[in-house]
Amino acid sequence: MGIADELIENNAAYAATFEPEPQGAPSRQVAIVACMDARLDPLPVLGLEVGQAHVIRNAGGIVSNDALRSLVISQRKLGTREVVIVQHTACGMMTITDEGFVEELREDVGEAPSWAPGAFGDLEQSVRDSVERVRSDPFLVDTAHVRGLIFDVQTGAVREVV
Amino acid sequence: MGIADELIENNAAYAATFEPEPQGAPSRQVAIVACMDARLDPLPVLGLEVGQAHVIRNAGGIVSNDALRSLVISQRKLGTREVVIVQHTACGMMTITDEGFVEELREDVGEAPSWAPGAFGDLEQSVRDSVERVRSDPFLVDTAHVRGLIFDVQTGAVREVV
Repeated sequence: MGIADELIENNAAYAATFEPEPQGAPSRQVAIVACMDARLDPLPVLGLEVGQAHVIRNAGGIVSNDALRSLVISQRKLGTREVVIVQHTACGMMTITDEGFVEELREDVGEAPSWAPGAFGDLEQSVRDSVERVRSDPFLVDTAHVRGLIFDVQTGAVREVV
Repeated sequence: MGIADELIENNAAYAATFEPEPQGAPSRQVAIVACMDARLDPLPVLGLEVGQAHVIRNAGGIVSNDALRSLVISQRKLGTREVVIVQHTACGMMTITDEGFVEELREDVGEAPSWAPGAFGDLEQSVRDSVERVRSDPFLVDTAHVRGLIFDVQTGAVREVV
């Protein structure tokens, strides 16, 4: 059966007490880029509420091309002006290498993917690299206000890298 | 000043009552792909709790190449076996066209981005297209369990497209 039917059922209780947001644009003009990790729930971690921020998430919380696409749309079409990147301790992306994972796919599937896996060995450097990708992007409106944080999955605390 | 310092400060209260999750892999073996929209908070919308699901988000909630990268890592390295896609009514991606937005960037910046904006005119078709991208991906382990939903930003309800 799977979980999807259960999730759709769950939604009825959510909708029963739902109050719509007055606007689509994030009221605090901030976009969060965070890892997809199940332990990391960006809004409560940062004390944000629904309606206040865009949330972009992928494996690693890296500023990929697709994250840049989303950020450019966020800034140019929906008025955000700050970026906060949240990567985290014990990330699965530190347990693989790009070469190893591509080789695994090649052996199993018979071809390599069009994307690079985005693995990293040094968490702080990965955060710095992602901050730099925001800073150097020519299509963003505001590249000055970007911060890079690491969320500790054991303590729930964030600390700033850059 | 910006909002980032405030968010880092907010985190202290979160960390004060934080209890770590016992494992990194999503306990319900599901990955959600959702739009970055500020009005859409995927976990409560679907009755999910922290620790249960991967959450991948971008502009539109489309199954982009980067979303596929994340899903392949989610399935192969962290054991998820289902995908639930959540796009939503009144999405900003329906207010632009790829051609128009690229032209706007070209005029303003002097060059076109490497990425396509990912705009869509038909919301249901966009959900179907994303479901199809999951179904036809050769690198995923399980492509049979994928569902596509539309979240109504006025009512809080989801409805299934496919």
